[in-house]
Amino acid sequence: MIRRPQLRPSGGDDGDDVARNLRTARMEAFSDGVFAIAITLLVLEISLPEDESIGHGLLTLWPSYVAYVTSFLTIGGVWLSHTLITEYLSSADAILLRLNLALLLMVSFLPFPSRLLAESMNDTEDARIVAPFYGLVLLALGILVSAMWRYGVRAGLVRPDADDIEVRSIGRRLSPALGFYVVSIAIGLLLPRLAPLLYMAIAVYVLVPIASGYRRTWT
Amino acid sequence: MIRRPQLRPSGGDDGDDVARNLRTARMEAFSDGVFAIAITLLVLEISLPEDESIGHGLLTLWPSYVAYVTSFLTIGGVWLSHTLITEYLSSADAILLRLNLALLLMVSFLPFPSRLLAESMNDTEDARIVAPFYGLVLLALGILVSAMWRYGVRAGLVRPDADDIEVRSIGRRLSPALGFYVVSIAIGLLLPRLAPLLYMAIAVYVLVPIASGYRRTWT
Amino acid sequence: MIRRPQLRPSGGDDGDDVARNLRTARMEAFSDGVFAIAITLLVLEISLPEDESIGHGLLTLWPSYVAYVTSFLTIGGVWLSHTLITEYLSSADAILLRLNLALLLMVSFLPFPSRLLAESMNDTEDARIVAPFYGLVLLALGILVSAMWRYGVRAGLVRPDADDIEVRSIGRRLSPALGFYVVSIAIGLLLPRLAPLLYMAIAVYVLVPIASGYRRTWT
Amino acid sequence: MIRRPQLRPSGGDDGDDVARNLRTARMEAFSDGVFAIAITLLVLEISLPEDESIGHGLLTLWPSYVAYVTSFLTIGGVWLSHTLITEYLSSADAILLRLNLALLLMVSFLPFPSRLLAESMNDTEDARIVAPFYGLVLLALGILVSAMWRYGVRAGLVRPDADDIEVRSIGRRLSPALGFYVVSIAIGLLLPRLAPLLYMAIAVYVLVPIASGYRRTWT
Repeated sequence: MIRRPQLRPSGGDDGDDVARNLRTARMEAFSDGVFAIAITLLVLEISLPEDESIGHGLLTLWPSYVAYVTSFLTIGGVWLSHTLITEYLSSADAILLRLNLALLLMVSFLPFPSRLLAESMNDTEDARIVAPFYGLVLLALGILVSAMWRYGVRAGLVRPDADDIEVRSIGRRLSPALGFYVVSIAIGLLLPRLAPLLYMAIAVYVLVPIASGYRRTWT
Repeated sequence: MIRRPQLRPSGGDDGDDVARNLRTARMEAFSDGVFAIAITLLVLEISLPEDESIGHGLLTLWPSYVAYVTSFLTIGGVWLSHTLITEYLSSADAILLRLNLALLLMVSFLPFPSRLLAESMNDTEDARIVAPFYGLVLLALGILVSAMWRYGVRAGLVRPDADDIEVRSIGRRLSPALGFYVVSIAIGLLLPRLAPLLYMAIAVYVLVPIASGYRRTWT
Repeated sequence: MIRRPQLRPSGGDDGDDVARNLRTARMEAFSDGVFAIAITLLVLEISLPEDESIGHGLLTLWPSYVAYVTSFLTIGGVWLSHTLITEYLSSADAILLRLNLALLLMVSFLPFPSRLLAESMNDTEDARIVAPFYGLVLLALGILVSAMWRYGVRAGLVRPDADDIEVRSIGRRLSPALGFYVVSIAIGLLLPRLAPLLYMAIAVYVLVPIASGYRRTWT
Repeated sequence: MIRRPQLRPSGGDDGDDVARNLRTARMEAFSDGVFAIAITLLVLEISLPEDESIGHGLLTLWPSYVAYVTSFLTIGGVWLSHTLITEYLSSADAILLRLNLALLLMVSFLPFPSRLLAESMNDTEDARIVAPFYGLVLLALGILVSAMWRYGVRAGLVRPDADDIEVRSIGRRLSPALGFYVVSIAIGLLLPRLAPLLYMAIAVYVLVPIASGYRRTWT
């Protein structure tokens, strides 16, 4: 029997395993593409107001910069979590591929609320609607990342040589921001113009590891 | 004789096989890129009406959300079918590469009818033209996916260790939606504003496996 | 000595070879990305005229469809040629990487003349300028594809197991369209509105192999 | 113990090494995606002035062409440097992944100052603000490329078989342009309309190797 080609040598031995690993490779490639495009499209939402001098215009654009950096760092953080998840999964099944699609749907939707956030930062009434709307998309991203990992663990997709303590530690590290998002959305209803800075702080907090034990478990 | 480098170890032994497998790898990479970009560009078609309050505007955008989700799920479903096809093909020949290009042409065209669908959902006369136009693009996608698989089977590109029952089962699973699309296009001529919901239902039906036998053959 | 990781097992044995092969892999990934994006951005250039009924508008858009299909098929053809070239090269050197960048510069520029072509097809005076402009970009693409292959052959980058007849046959197949482009540009100066159809015919001619000997040498 | 799948065979033997190499592979894929998209989005910034004849319009667009080519070549140069860096690193750690994200943030931001540069080239007052703004983004790109390499060397991520002379030579080659950028930004404050040409000259200087010793160390 001629064995089919494989991108990644598999731990298991049956054809199914190989097939799943090939699928994981394409899931990663497709996801990397969507992450890369969504993160790069954000810049298209920045544009100079027509009726101002360029110097003043560049300064009045600060809400666009805040929204750009916040959305960029958030997608960057989701991408980092995604690489962590696929590192520890030895295969992808039908449900995981669909959870992944749902995550990508939210990732590629983000440029839209990101533009709204930039446009509304100078208007408290608008911001009161847009800031929670933006926050809910971030929350959905966090929930879907966490759901992918939890599903993978429950469905036995985690590679066999990962020990239990590591697996639980990853679970904790993938969901710290969920509570912060809920709080930020609530604050955004009262102090809407503060919310973008909170979202940016969360993105930075996720990206910049402070805990000293950070290096030991790798991210 | 120094052997050429190869990305995927091949089952066969002659240089041609290796060459074809390398080509398959690039066909997958290029296709993943086009799928990822088309699915992410969809968000650029969503934009708030200028003359409305942001709260009301976000609500009146529901046709854009429907079009966005429908097109996203449809491209996602085509991508899943595409990964299934390339899983079972051990090589790509000249004709398959061109069928693949035709499929990608339709995939990357979809953001245009998708925007039209969103814009016309509030106008029955416009929708009567746009809904079938959008449906025809979805139908073309379905036909091309099915054609790629059928051509691959006939041309002997299926990997040798796949058994006949599996191959026939995949053929059935890759074309269930064709009839639904034809029916939805016909309904769209009479009840045009219903059509987008039908297209979304088809996309969900393709993505969410209901049949209990689903897990045994994997997708 | 610990060997560095490698994506593609190399025919040669020294570290340099491995390094070059890794570079080839990234050149392919980056190029596939640019090809995929350029080919997908084309759809953004299609937009319905504001002041017309949607039915009539969809029909008056035919120049956009012609430009879209022509540019899509042209980029598709360049991508196919590119996969053929990288198949036969066992490594990439500094000059080849720069020739590749020049090719990608032209590929990613194409959406601009493509939009102009669509806009000018209803105005003979405009078309007299735009059709040759578009044609020159296609000609530049053809010249750069041909230059990459010729340089690779001269610099000894072709994999050692490729025989001379094959190599010469590829050289011929990569440059057939150059003369056609020159003729089409000339015709475009006299009959500018005919030129887009000629460019489309060339793209189809490159993509659809007619010659019976086609299958023997593979593309 | 079943070993986890791996994309790149690793020099080391422990699981961590494999994990890191897999991560490097995804860092490269994601970065290639962002580079490819940013370089291709540049063309969207070129658009013909509405109120001019197409022939004259194409000529008055020269500032757009200058900005397009300059930004394209700059991103192309950064991509080349990036491939050189990842070639010599055998793994990626948490800090390197974040430095890489910062680099990609700047890369994907470039289309915005690039469009401003094109728009301001006909207005000395605007150019006096935009030219240094654009230059600062280029300088930031250069600094981040250099920082990635320096960090990689210090953190011991360089592959063990790279000799010291090579490593130092790469360090020199990755940072030559920093001084030129500072000088160009200063000149841009006095002669703003000259600055774009200086930036283009730097990009060409980085891309076209003149030094005769160039071929021996490879890029």
